[in-house]
Amino acid sequence: MRTKSANALLALLEEEGSQRIPLTLRLQNAVRRLIIDGHLSEGERLPSTRMMASDLGLARDTVEDAYQHLEMEGFLERRMGSGTFVSASEHRFIGNRRSTGRARSERSAPGSTELSRRGQAIARSGGVPDHPCPKPFVVLPDVQSFPLETWLKLTAKVIRGIKRETLLYADPMGYPPLREEIARYLSAHRGVEASTEQIVVLNSSLQALGLIASLLMEPGERVGLEEPGFHGARQVFCAAGLRLESIPVDVDGISSDRVEKHGSDIRAVYVTPSHQYPLGATLSLQRRLALVRWAEQTRGWIIEDDYDSEFRYDGRPIAAIQSLAPGRRVLYIGTFSKVLFPGLRLAYLVLPSSLVPAFVSARTLVDGHTAVISQAVLAEFMREGHFTTHIRRMRQIYHARRDAFAEAFEKHLSRFASMIFPAGGLHLTALLNDELDEAASVAAAARHAIELPALRQLYAGPKGRKGWLMGFAALPPGDAEKAMRKLAKALPD
Amino acid sequence: MRTKSANALLALLEEEGSQRIPLTLRLQNAVRRLIIDGHLSEGERLPSTRMMASDLGLARDTVEDAYQHLEMEGFLERRMGSGTFVSASEHRFIGNRRSTGRARSERSAPGSTELSRRGQAIARSGGVPDHPCPKPFVVLPDVQSFPLETWLKLTAKVIRGIKRETLLYADPMGYPPLREEIARYLSAHRGVEASTEQIVVLNSSLQALGLIASLLMEPGERVGLEEPGFHGARQVFCAAGLRLESIPVDVDGISSDRVEKHGSDIRAVYVTPSHQYPLGATLSLQRRLALVRWAEQTRGWIIEDDYDSEFRYDGRPIAAIQSLAPGRRVLYIGTFSKVLFPGLRLAYLVLPSSLVPAFVSARTLVDGHTAVISQAVLAEFMREGHFTTHIRRMRQIYHARRDAFAEAFEKHLSRFASMIFPAGGLHLTALLNDELDEAASVAAAARHAIELPALRQLYAGPKGRKGWLMGFAALPPGDAEKAMRKLAKALPD
Repeated sequence: MRTKSANALLALLEEEGSQRIPLTLRLQNAVRRLIIDGHLSEGERLPSTRMMASDLGLARDTVEDAYQHLEMEGFLERRMGSGTFVSASEHRFIGNRRSTGRARSERSAPGSTELSRRGQAIARSGGVPDHPCPKPFVVLPDVQSFPLETWLKLTAKVIRGIKRETLLYADPMGYPPLREEIARYLSAHRGVEASTEQIVVLNSSLQALGLIASLLMEPGERVGLEEPGFHGARQVFCAAGLRLESIPVDVDGISSDRVEKHGSDIRAVYVTPSHQYPLGATLSLQRRLALVRWAEQTRGWIIEDDYDSEFRYDGRPIAAIQSLAPGRRVLYIGTFSKVLFPGLRLAYLVLPSSLVPAFVSARTLVDGHTAVISQAVLAEFMREGHFTTHIRRMRQIYHARRDAFAEAFEKHLSRFASMIFPAGGLHLTALLNDELDEAASVAAAARHAIELPALRQLYAGPKGRKGWLMGFAALPPGDAEKAMRKLAKALPD
Repeated sequence: MRTKSANALLALLEEEGSQRIPLTLRLQNAVRRLIIDGHLSEGERLPSTRMMASDLGLARDTVEDAYQHLEMEGFLERRMGSGTFVSASEHRFIGNRRSTGRARSERSAPGSTELSRRGQAIARSGGVPDHPCPKPFVVLPDVQSFPLETWLKLTAKVIRGIKRETLLYADPMGYPPLREEIARYLSAHRGVEASTEQIVVLNSSLQALGLIASLLMEPGERVGLEEPGFHGARQVFCAAGLRLESIPVDVDGISSDRVEKHGSDIRAVYVTPSHQYPLGATLSLQRRLALVRWAEQTRGWIIEDDYDSEFRYDGRPIAAIQSLAPGRRVLYIGTFSKVLFPGLRLAYLVLPSSLVPAFVSARTLVDGHTAVISQAVLAEFMREGHFTTHIRRMRQIYHARRDAFAEAFEKHLSRFASMIFPAGGLHLTALLNDELDEAASVAAAARHAIELPALRQLYAGPKGRKGWLMGFAALPPGDAEKAMRKLAKALPD
């Protein structure tokens, strides 16, 4: 073994962070790496276990163990009486030789051109990364007020009381007691009529959309989306190979006339009827009924995303479209991301019974099922009444924040924009005055650490109103007003 | 309001399980349901709030609140001085009228023919439902021995110490401290060379396969799979529209010669080199190098599924293929389902750096990211050393169980079948004697509550050996032997 190899070996052995790893493993990994990287050549003789042990200050058994293991793996050959050698492999490790290593490795490193067409499209789109940081005016729920202590207490209760079998693979439809709680909640608060056998627990709303797109639609078929609307839905449908049809939104929500005009040209329509994202309209009963009629007549699907209906400040949330035609053409999606916290990763889909088996089978292929402990904790959280208490509490907090936010907005920002006062939810939309440039205003805000998502991004087509999305829920009123003051100064007068 | 409607209203109000729901909500839901179902007709006059309150024994405010809300939703109209009426909707609720309700609802209920072609294929396949019940001889880890108390202690530590922001949307690549721990573990124990920036945390191995299939392959391209091999992989690739090419497996693992013969006809090969599923072979170094050479020459992908490599009883696990060509053509998949518990839903994918952004974007579209608390708890579990301790402990338990199982097998079942003695893992494969019919033996076992997955199911092609998969890890030796005795009696002599 040349001095250079010996030094390389020493360096590998002492690699940072390896102190917790048993020495024999470190030695075995180091020698293997030297062979793979070409520092030790084919046929080269290694020091005897005794010499290696004394050189490195290790016990001889440690070296013997490592050599034995590498022999078993096929990297070393031990010949009785003559010593230990690097295996002569018919395939050799040429690709990795030091001399050519770099060039070779660059040549072999995969490029983004190796992505499939779909992969390239997704890479270009960037996906829908969420915002981990609650700076103004990111649209987020307030997690400061989440009762973590209660959650922890219930976690302890669940873990202590859990049947060990529950840790094994669980029901891919979702933990049954959680489905029961969801069914009860939906019936009472959303008018949704569904048995526990129609509810499938998922990780997120987007997972629901992905399953719907692949199970109910052929690539190339059309789906109608609100314009402006939720960009995440647009991207998921797009990635599934569907064609997107923009349906305009006005003060009463999505135009059901336009949906009816499309007839069976579109196979599904994606709607946020409780609180249209992003403009905030509540879809009128007339239009809800028109959508149901369209769906029944064309055998189309209504995909009802009820993402933040729990937070309605003026009156109670109005009943879901699903309640108008239960078990038929409505696929109802709910999520706990807004109501509890997004990192929980729990959502659900309410389906007509006949579709459930296909969705469950697909779920087992996608990622098996949702993690079981968090499902059990949430079931307890709902069963013991903490869930409705938390919603009531947050509704009060958000209600007050909305009002304070709107007041501050009038004071500081009304000369730049006018807001659409929201009846619910976690954000409001501000529409810019004609003089103000949307991109320039967003950039100016960004320079002051204020995130101001442009309304523009939520339009699929070229036409659209200029505006900002402003989250008011995660910010204490004082912070919100301070940020607005800063924003007002940053904007061109 | 007719008596019939009044009775229906009472029934709805007293529905089981509704006691926890506020009365005004119950009333509002009940009246809405009567309208939707056609029990209350368009234009029909409702009792005054005073009468309704006295009829139902409710406070008048409760009724007033419910009426107001239903008016806001558009179901009721209140005319000053003349009362409260069911809205005349131009669209009406005809589809729901009592008289025609049933027929209509049957006509409108979606059928399985409404699934997409892909949806129908998935529904037919049934997906890959896992076995929630640890009866003999289901292949499962032993969750009885999982240190739940430690897990709970760490959960409490994590929840108490968590930054509230962590509850928001998290890094779609995975919680950074967990990725660090995984990188360290992989380097020490699997020879895998990867920075934390190459590791993507996922929910399951199948999620990894799904992402690989959609991001790196076009529908219609071919992927090579071990024959016999993991049915879950086969189904995921199939659902992604790939064509499957069976590659035979012998005592040294998958035939690399056959892979090389396919050349660039196949875009990827899926392998379980540490412990071939289901036959148990360890892929030889020669063949590993041949696969790497094939991948480099054809720019193909090696999908290395290292599903249970931690449990090697004769010697230590051998280094991963990834270690032979780090950062190039190997996509390495690991999972915590076998090592910890399946309900945890945590796995990971080690990628060449250049592919990471596309995979992360795709993940945000699929389901956002993996739940954050369990990731943080696992990171602590690894950091504090419980992970390697648990592996060591389980390795001892499983080792002893394997030996006892093999002994019992020889005693009770050797006249029916011969086993492939496994060097690791949670199961062994038994090959049936010529006389014994596979399907008949599986059915006979099932009649005695013994699950004996047929080897047949793991072959894609018509040819294959007859056998059983027998999990030995989840069963105490006494139970295993008892089940074998029962099985021996049940089988035809």
